Amino acid sequence: MAKEIERKFLVSGQEWRGLVEDKIRIRQFYLASNTGRSVRLRICDGARATLTLKFGSRGRERDEFEYDVPLADALEMLDFAVGRVIEKTRHHVSHGGRLYEVDVFGGELSGLVIAELETPEDVPAAELPAWLGREVTGDARYYNAALALSDIPEAVA
Amino acid sequence: MAKEIERKFLVSGQEWRGLVEDKIRIRQFYLASNTGRSVRLRICDGARATLTLKFGSRGRERDEFEYDVPLADALEMLDFAVGRVIEKTRHHVSHGGRLYEVDVFGGELSGLVIAELETPEDVPAAELPAWLGREVTGDARYYNAALALSDIPEAVA
Repeated sequence: MAKEIERKFLVSGQEWRGLVEDKIRIRQFYLASNTGRSVRLRICDGARATLTLKFGSRGRERDEFEYDVPLADALEMLDFAVGRVIEKTRHHVSHGGRLYEVDVFGGELSGLVIAELETPEDVPAAELPAWLGREVTGDARYYNAALALSDIPEAVA
Repeated sequence: MAKEIERKFLVSGQEWRGLVEDKIRIRQFYLASNTGRSVRLRICDGARATLTLKFGSRGRERDEFEYDVPLADALEMLDFAVGRVIEKTRHHVSHGGRLYEVDVFGGELSGLVIAELETPEDVPAAELPAWLGREVTGDARYYNAALALSDIPEAVA
């Protein structure tokens, strides 16, 4: 079990593109999603698959359990996806000694770029990079499950 | 992925007790259950834990994916059980060259004894053991998920 504290921001600038240290192609989908729990499959770089169970309130802290599963199983379970299969490229970007994950979405969600910062500290606004736009932490429309299951958020349309 | 064809029977006799080859103490609970899909955790003999995802119609055939998970994770996830935590002792009983799993339920479901036969063949009635009672294959009240999530079936009350 791991506790995660996660802040999310829309991305307004392009300057992060020069700072990319790594990128991963992600396809992910939900196998179940209810209030307070979700079961998600993620396929990274078409090569490895991870099953994640999340429980608890949808705020900044939750219980999470993660297991590797065979890629062939994950590809079969695509048939059982609830909602959309999300396609995005995750970029690892460093700023001020902190790692930001910048997700550039594809498909129906093209145009959406979200940065996530996972940290146990409270980071002062002055230390956040200038290319971050509006903070959307706790905004239900930008939960991963909502992006898979709900209408496309305005920021994209 | 494995296809299973499973027949279920109530157990009326006691003669199976002399034929037990093995028994396993099972605690199991659901982490998610919706029409056509379920996510179940099973702890066997208090020692090992398995996560099972089942998809498809609730008839005799379905898609099933199973993964071992650390016991400590499973014990933590007890807090997130949907419905009852089922306690039962599973007995392996051979009859006519076929393996029957005879589940003796405990706790709230005490009194319920169900035999399962998993086989790709159509087994003629004459080859079934005499200690089987009414067949309940396809009877929604006896689905594992229903036993965890619904009212106690009549056979117990």
